[in-house]
Amino acid sequence: MSTVFDESLKLHEQAKGKLDIALKVPCDSVEDLSLAYSPGVAQPCREIAKDVSKSYVYTGRGNTIAVITDGTAVLGLGDIGPEAALPVMEGKSLLFKKFGNVNAYPLCLNTKDPKEIIQICKMLAPCLGGINLEDISAPRCVEIERTLIQELDIPVFHDDQHGTAIVLLAALINSLKLVNKKADECKVVINGTGAAGSSIIKMLYNYGFKNIVAFDSKGCLHKANKDRYDFLKQELLDYVNLNDANYENLADGLKGADIFVGVSIANVVTPEMVKSMNRDAIVMALANPDPEIPYQDAIDAGARIVGTGRSDYPNQVNNVLAFPGIFRGALDAQATKIDEDAKIAASIAIASLLDEKELRNDYIIPSPFDMRVAPAVAEAVKQSCEKNGNVKWR
Amino acid sequence: MSTVFDESLKLHEQAKGKLDIALKVPCDSVEDLSLAYSPGVAQPCREIAKDVSKSYVYTGRGNTIAVITDGTAVLGLGDIGPEAALPVMEGKSLLFKKFGNVNAYPLCLNTKDPKEIIQICKMLAPCLGGINLEDISAPRCVEIERTLIQELDIPVFHDDQHGTAIVLLAALINSLKLVNKKADECKVVINGTGAAGSSIIKMLYNYGFKNIVAFDSKGCLHKANKDRYDFLKQELLDYVNLNDANYENLADGLKGADIFVGVSIANVVTPEMVKSMNRDAIVMALANPDPEIPYQDAIDAGARIVGTGRSDYPNQVNNVLAFPGIFRGALDAQATKIDEDAKIAASIAIASLLDEKELRNDYIIPSPFDMRVAPAVAEAVKQSCEKNGNVKWR
Repeated sequence: MSTVFDESLKLHEQAKGKLDIALKVPCDSVEDLSLAYSPGVAQPCREIAKDVSKSYVYTGRGNTIAVITDGTAVLGLGDIGPEAALPVMEGKSLLFKKFGNVNAYPLCLNTKDPKEIIQICKMLAPCLGGINLEDISAPRCVEIERTLIQELDIPVFHDDQHGTAIVLLAALINSLKLVNKKADECKVVINGTGAAGSSIIKMLYNYGFKNIVAFDSKGCLHKANKDRYDFLKQELLDYVNLNDANYENLADGLKGADIFVGVSIANVVTPEMVKSMNRDAIVMALANPDPEIPYQDAIDAGARIVGTGRSDYPNQVNNVLAFPGIFRGALDAQATKIDEDAKIAASIAIASLLDEKELRNDYIIPSPFDMRVAPAVAEAVKQSCEKNGNVKWR
Repeated sequence: MSTVFDESLKLHEQAKGKLDIALKVPCDSVEDLSLAYSPGVAQPCREIAKDVSKSYVYTGRGNTIAVITDGTAVLGLGDIGPEAALPVMEGKSLLFKKFGNVNAYPLCLNTKDPKEIIQICKMLAPCLGGINLEDISAPRCVEIERTLIQELDIPVFHDDQHGTAIVLLAALINSLKLVNKKADECKVVINGTGAAGSSIIKMLYNYGFKNIVAFDSKGCLHKANKDRYDFLKQELLDYVNLNDANYENLADGLKGADIFVGVSIANVVTPEMVKSMNRDAIVMALANPDPEIPYQDAIDAGARIVGTGRSDYPNQVNNVLAFPGIFRGALDAQATKIDEDAKIAASIAIASLLDEKELRNDYIIPSPFDMRVAPAVAEAVKQSCEKNGNVKWR
């Protein structure tokens, strides 16, 4: 029996690319050409030259983003280079179109230098309504995204950081309703402090989780070790372990915890560790393709709610629930940035789609094909951007 | 009555962009997602990581180019900036798709520094099968194109230089059949030595025209003035004015000429100047939107064959006859470059589509909507690239 990998390879060979350019205007006569191209096209050019904001009126800029990678952190495959990253970027663009009706160009860069990546994004900005950074390794991705957010007036969003964080927060918001706990009463243990982990920590804190303990591959994040941390982990010390506990290891940290979030590697959590958690334990084991603890093992060990990154188990934390709607809303608002409030608004919008009556332990977030999600996220993000004044030309 | 400019502005405002992204693979179920995206997509990624040539098998790279500009020489509008150039680049991408079935991303850069433009093109190359440079001012465009051709293994082509040259040569090939003259017997006078003019001069010379006289805005190109020329004009001294004549002005140069080619500005040629040309004069007045001499004035002055850049007169020298087929052929060949032989092959292919019996003074080149053109050009370019060994992976 052929695997999903064999089938996918066959599909890719047959399709030779997952995207096409389609024409939105007629192009069948000399008259058509004179309007869509020379000489008529000179007129929108002149109007935009007079007022750059008109680029959102007379071109596709307002519905166009670039999906940009350097190929350094692709799926679980690591640094496979820009050419090999292209199937993923095409896939991402496919999802942007399918779920958000956003036109996305997949662009893979032949450089790993953050300065060059920043420079190329800045040079491409005039023809784009936004930039989605993708599969760039940490902590470089944070430096790149942060600089671009500061220096560009179009939204820049690194999905690996924030996409998972937004959907995870949505899952936790609904989980807390089921277990009847409040965010500020929960002890949260996070394993993994890379791109996704660092964004999760900040979003959970900003949402209201204050008792957060984080682990990296070397142990509990603690200010005593500050000197050996990169800038990103140093920043996280303002959000985690505010009780100043020094847990020996992940097993020690999980004792009495209400929530576990894994964005790390397979099989680092045992059934015994789940058993040591508080009543109504919530386990979000998001490592791909194999979670920190298998779904059924976590359930058998007594966890009440279990989520993974996998589509073949309940409660898939899939960032396709976030990024198409995020950019749809940002583009609709002609946003200049997607700030923390907009991200939390997206989480709340995703969570709110499920009525409290339909929530179940194995149904805490909508499915990726729930077509209500992207419009709801888009509206929430648009409103948030407008409320915070993060919009252009107004 | 509304003008073509009003109509075009309205079209652009309604369409809000002339291009869309379309999906080439199914995306309607969890199973579809698992093949087009995670987890299945890891397999084409792994295959390409092992062998970069497989990026032409498993992605759209082999049918994707970028249309890249810095907005410094857009239509006749000049340096209007990257945002204002976007309607033209979208239009160009539209034509690439319509006539060549080539997927082209319109990219407008926020820099005028040739080094930065070169660098960004090199960084984007891993996801592209070719690069079409567009509307970059001379002589920078020549430096940029030349460096990229040397340093990249995908074809790079600046349409403003070569597109017009290719179609013009096609027009002259057929004109010579009508007037029964040979290329090496003709005196050719060219007014304009910028992007298009310099490429025209070299192509005509390489095709067989040896008696070429060129004028820029300051007069006849002559080696006595070499010191005041930029590198591009200095190079042209190897191709023009090999008789070492020193014409006082354009009127003086045109006396006895067989062919006039204008890629300059409106109304610099008078009926008297046309009358001073040799019998069966050929006048190609390509300045846009207004030619060096109006079509009817040139006819009335006795020119036998007159061509312009305009669609509302016969013999339109329109580079849409060249660039879609050029890139179609280069992509089909997985070409590494489009060399001078390939360009001349394209000219001959365009000219050959018209049977000698159907040639008329007012029908020397096919119309832009003659759908035989792009396939014929593509086949000629493909064969030429293969013959000269300018192909990848073989």
